Amino acid sequence: MAGNSIGQLFRISTFGESHGIAIGVILDGCPAQLPIDLDFIQSELDKRKPGQSKITTQRKESDTVQILSGTFEGKTTGTPIMMLIPNEDQRSKDYSHNTDVYRPSHADYTYDAKYGIRDHRGGGRSSARETAARVAAGAIAKLLLKLHGIEIFAHVSSVGKIVAPNLSGDSIENLLTIREENIVRCADPATADQMIDFIDGVRKDGDTVGGKISCIVRNCPVGLGEPVFDKLHADLGKAMLSINAVHGFEYGSGFEGSEMRGSEHNDVFLVGTKQPKTLTNFSGGVQGGISNGMEINFTVAFKPVATIMHNQQTINSSGEAAEIKGKGRHDPCVVPRAVVIVEAMAALVLADHLLRNKVSKV
Amino acid sequence: MAGNSIGQLFRISTFGESHGIAIGVILDGCPAQLPIDLDFIQSELDKRKPGQSKITTQRKESDTVQILSGTFEGKTTGTPIMMLIPNEDQRSKDYSHNTDVYRPSHADYTYDAKYGIRDHRGGGRSSARETAARVAAGAIAKLLLKLHGIEIFAHVSSVGKIVAPNLSGDSIENLLTIREENIVRCADPATADQMIDFIDGVRKDGDTVGGKISCIVRNCPVGLGEPVFDKLHADLGKAMLSINAVHGFEYGSGFEGSEMRGSEHNDVFLVGTKQPKTLTNFSGGVQGGISNGMEINFTVAFKPVATIMHNQQTINSSGEAAEIKGKGRHDPCVVPRAVVIVEAMAALVLADHLLRNKVSKV
Amino acid sequence: MAGNSIGQLFRISTFGESHGIAIGVILDGCPAQLPIDLDFIQSELDKRKPGQSKITTQRKESDTVQILSGTFEGKTTGTPIMMLIPNEDQRSKDYSHNTDVYRPSHADYTYDAKYGIRDHRGGGRSSARETAARVAAGAIAKLLLKLHGIEIFAHVSSVGKIVAPNLSGDSIENLLTIREENIVRCADPATADQMIDFIDGVRKDGDTVGGKISCIVRNCPVGLGEPVFDKLHADLGKAMLSINAVHGFEYGSGFEGSEMRGSEHNDVFLVGTKQPKTLTNFSGGVQGGISNGMEINFTVAFKPVATIMHNQQTINSSGEAAEIKGKGRHDPCVVPRAVVIVEAMAALVLADHLLRNKVSKV
Amino acid sequence: MAGNSIGQLFRISTFGESHGIAIGVILDGCPAQLPIDLDFIQSELDKRKPGQSKITTQRKESDTVQILSGTFEGKTTGTPIMMLIPNEDQRSKDYSHNTDVYRPSHADYTYDAKYGIRDHRGGGRSSARETAARVAAGAIAKLLLKLHGIEIFAHVSSVGKIVAPNLSGDSIENLLTIREENIVRCADPATADQMIDFIDGVRKDGDTVGGKISCIVRNCPVGLGEPVFDKLHADLGKAMLSINAVHGFEYGSGFEGSEMRGSEHNDVFLVGTKQPKTLTNFSGGVQGGISNGMEINFTVAFKPVATIMHNQQTINSSGEAAEIKGKGRHDPCVVPRAVVIVEAMAALVLADHLLRNKVSKV
Repeated sequence: MAGNSIGQLFRISTFGESHGIAIGVILDGCPAQLPIDLDFIQSELDKRKPGQSKITTQRKESDTVQILSGTFEGKTTGTPIMMLIPNEDQRSKDYSHNTDVYRPSHADYTYDAKYGIRDHRGGGRSSARETAARVAAGAIAKLLLKLHGIEIFAHVSSVGKIVAPNLSGDSIENLLTIREENIVRCADPATADQMIDFIDGVRKDGDTVGGKISCIVRNCPVGLGEPVFDKLHADLGKAMLSINAVHGFEYGSGFEGSEMRGSEHNDVFLVGTKQPKTLTNFSGGVQGGISNGMEINFTVAFKPVATIMHNQQTINSSGEAAEIKGKGRHDPCVVPRAVVIVEAMAALVLADHLLRNKVSKV
Repeated sequence: MAGNSIGQLFRISTFGESHGIAIGVILDGCPAQLPIDLDFIQSELDKRKPGQSKITTQRKESDTVQILSGTFEGKTTGTPIMMLIPNEDQRSKDYSHNTDVYRPSHADYTYDAKYGIRDHRGGGRSSARETAARVAAGAIAKLLLKLHGIEIFAHVSSVGKIVAPNLSGDSIENLLTIREENIVRCADPATADQMIDFIDGVRKDGDTVGGKISCIVRNCPVGLGEPVFDKLHADLGKAMLSINAVHGFEYGSGFEGSEMRGSEHNDVFLVGTKQPKTLTNFSGGVQGGISNGMEINFTVAFKPVATIMHNQQTINSSGEAAEIKGKGRHDPCVVPRAVVIVEAMAALVLADHLLRNKVSKV
Repeated sequence: MAGNSIGQLFRISTFGESHGIAIGVILDGCPAQLPIDLDFIQSELDKRKPGQSKITTQRKESDTVQILSGTFEGKTTGTPIMMLIPNEDQRSKDYSHNTDVYRPSHADYTYDAKYGIRDHRGGGRSSARETAARVAAGAIAKLLLKLHGIEIFAHVSSVGKIVAPNLSGDSIENLLTIREENIVRCADPATADQMIDFIDGVRKDGDTVGGKISCIVRNCPVGLGEPVFDKLHADLGKAMLSINAVHGFEYGSGFEGSEMRGSEHNDVFLVGTKQPKTLTNFSGGVQGGISNGMEINFTVAFKPVATIMHNQQTINSSGEAAEIKGKGRHDPCVVPRAVVIVEAMAALVLADHLLRNKVSKV
Repeated sequence: MAGNSIGQLFRISTFGESHGIAIGVILDGCPAQLPIDLDFIQSELDKRKPGQSKITTQRKESDTVQILSGTFEGKTTGTPIMMLIPNEDQRSKDYSHNTDVYRPSHADYTYDAKYGIRDHRGGGRSSARETAARVAAGAIAKLLLKLHGIEIFAHVSSVGKIVAPNLSGDSIENLLTIREENIVRCADPATADQMIDFIDGVRKDGDTVGGKISCIVRNCPVGLGEPVFDKLHADLGKAMLSINAVHGFEYGSGFEGSEMRGSEHNDVFLVGTKQPKTLTNFSGGVQGGISNGMEINFTVAFKPVATIMHNQQTINSSGEAAEIKGKGRHDPCVVPRAVVIVEAMAALVLADHLLRNKVSKV
């Protein structure tokens, strides 16, 4: 109720502050007997961790995950899976100058107003560090989905105004290989080069820039999604919008669909397929809130990181003028590290709906 | 769990099929002693009802709402408020030809696949008729918000490629008057005329077109929204994405924000205001998932209505070729009637978070 | 959240006041394709309705139920099932003398204190009339359970100090026949006669008396119940305690078990059974919160009805002395009509856990 | 949904197995600015920990709690409070002989049947060790309740057939002192002596015995409890029944109330009190599911511990005959250590309803 949990049957509750002792997550509702591959979970976290490349923050955290409960002899037992990620590089003094100052476009003021108290060190609970816990849980969701053949793939589809071409029909295995060969995590190598150069320039300016991540889901069974409020795309949308810095979500034809006519937008069924398929996929794999077996696709828009390396005028908690000094170790662009977060949240939503759909018929 | 409820403390559960006996809603968690204005609730429903103008469906339903419980002597009692809207114009035979045919880009196939049974009459539960129940409940949410001075206003900001200018700083009362003076519900009269002409042309083509609705919330108290998953904009996003035909949601700088730099996107605080205010509002009134007292703004993208007046090739439930005859009474463009649905869903989310925020501090 | 819903996957939300227009229920989460037998639902309601015999209230309500949504051609569709029971005999003037008076051991004072407003007519929402909605939903739960061979049977096991012998191992079909042959609904005819005479005497005194209802569940699959908080018996206990006038719940060895030694209380496994069975059943069919396949048994204690036909001294809402006149039409003992309510609540809990258990393993 | 969480606004989720790395709890929804007294939390855990006296298990665990998140400079911040209790004395080999054997009246068989896998070491998740996490969270609930003047007190009211007299009207501070002066935690010293002797004898027999715990709540505000399903006593009942070994719950007149007449059971209001009070309190402080300001009282029945020091015939997972050797370190009677668990669960329910009641009126 206090907002730190998501999912109904496959449900996570995260905890922890940026500069506290640890962050972590309880995953409750994971079915028993799922083999757990700790190396895979760690490899997912490694894609989100800071300090990966020149275009991410230089802060260092190994983000080593431990499983404290819910597994036995390598498998889930049906009991809550608790995963802990200790905080290592807690240079709280980097933040001591911000104790009473509200950083522009951060959550400093709103947390103070809502709770009357806040852990100012590195943003506390509002820090994107919390998303590491989501990635850990999302990795287990992926393991469950993999059992059912469901594949998820996201990549950076734009940085600033540099836009990647649409994803090819290549296998997800191949797309993944291509994506991981560049530090910006774009599946198109040529665009990736441009993005990297651009971000590096922005970084040198002490500035930041926004971007977009596009995600596809293949082999999703027909029938996932619960009308009328828990439509599959509505739950995906909420999950994405809950990620720090996200300002927009669209699926299928998205915003462009609002400019189209029904006669061009309708996805006509093919005749003679074993399972119904459509010629086009403006529906983005979801019709009436329920997956239709076509590829699910959606795009998530991220605003630029608010922490810039410039001095900024602002106010303190008394409303008086104050100045933010541009220092610390921050990302010039958040999307390369957010790719795995988008995948994790998608996996969590799909795992939840996969379970929920098991009771749709007698 | 089965997806027909939304909200935590201020919670609605809707029921009913397009061509069943009635649709309706239980609103549970409305605080006691709220004066209920039935005329206001009905007036909200009248804005959504079919048959309003030449650019909406010609189907006729009075959508008369009755309150069956939860009020006493004109006030809420704290017990569940049940509102019933009988279905009147149930020309089920209009749909008898569709019994076994899957209409393109409708939910016919997905409902059949998920449940193994479906009420094919007019889309059954997947019909947008269900949103009338949301409007009724949303009207009560508005009454609660009004007690706290919170105002919500939405209008049609685009139809196809016709885009209205940004909303003026006019009072919501005035904006509402202007909006209701034209049948497309756009707050800019000149644009409204273009939109109406365009939709009328589309209608004559037997076609449909998409559009966008933009919504603002004024006087929202600081502090609404529950990090980390139930961020205010995430819950707004889910609520909007749960509306039939919605394919996208953005707030504040939205998708354009992904092209910006941090140095231009950061909302700098003004010095010397009583309550903190920002010079710009790219944050859309929400920072870290919590309202910051600035105007909340967001935009919702609707795809074109799938029912067109053309014959369409499709398949039946056996996968065989079939044809959809273009007939019935449908909307050429859904946005004029959806304006009040967007407002209703926004009101429901805000009312829920208003209550949830009451327990944020000891 | 406001307390008018119960169940997670198989979930009901009830609404309505004793003397409002109607009461009813939304059942959300009933799997699709369940055949609905409206006659059966009505026959269950008939067992709860007032005016059945000389030992129940003489108030007359037919309690006729209508299904307004969620079924199509005799089967559930997976969408919310709304059932409405109009109120017929709303002699509100019977209650006009109680407008401002707090009846002893009723909820008049507490509702007033909590909500600052109350519908005083017949207890409003606090009236046991609300349980009719539970019985209607419970009947559908029974239909679902029957598909899985699960049988539920309750009867009046005590009235005042008159206690029935333990249930025989007779078939539930036979027990039901015996129970329905007497107006107190006790499965032991000889005890039933004593109970009826006793209640009739109490009624002539203008007084009321409490009693107990015992319930068994046969053929419950192994594995229902979710540790650690949603143990099967904990959810059964809550469901029973939510019924008006219930003051106690015990299962298996119950309160007597607290006097026993482990060496006598342990249920030893039999060797050589196909599915594990125990020699004794002090566990009441539930171990560690999970059904073990043995007969589930529990007992529910009801206090005497608070409305008596004597004048009583009390206070009004200003704290001043007032008098309650003993009049109206009330039950001298609530248990004969509550048997079907106990069964309904048990069925709802079991149906919910039956669905919840479908996702316990990969 | 998977059953490891309880509470709506003040909500806990526990995790951990008896012989895993650690157990713990996330408390989500605790209001911000509550001062946290870690010594108090630890002192509560010390009342539950093993090895306290000759009548408890001799197993040694310090049950040292750490707070990993959710507090800052000694106060809650409104974010999730994570508390970790590492497992120390994990003599798993004590259990190696039980790997494939189903212990009578334990949860071995049911967990295996439900999940198809189980952590057999010390009962895994089904162990009462999980309740330490509840006690830690319950301690914080008590701190919140104390701010509102609400006091909770429980004691051992019976062991086997030895029954303590009803609690005196003494202050809770004094009752607590008396209770803690004896190792059985009964507020009546003379009865305590008998209980201790009796338990010690049972222990020497290698046997176990059940008992009852009675609990009172003083200064509970009027208005807590949410009709109709989340009645205060229904939520208390569920919380108590979720504690390991509990087989019964009653409040107010309880099971005896079922033998009474309305004319003797009705709690008559006193005239002239500032806040309405009743002459008697058969209602147990709750009317219509809502607290009425009188003392809340209830009793919880515990069955005897299933682990006895005798050899027992049983079966293994293949249904073959097997033998349980009586060894290990277990409690002859669980109630002395369970007193603080009962208080903790009561505190959690009350804290939840205290928050929920904040939105009952506009």
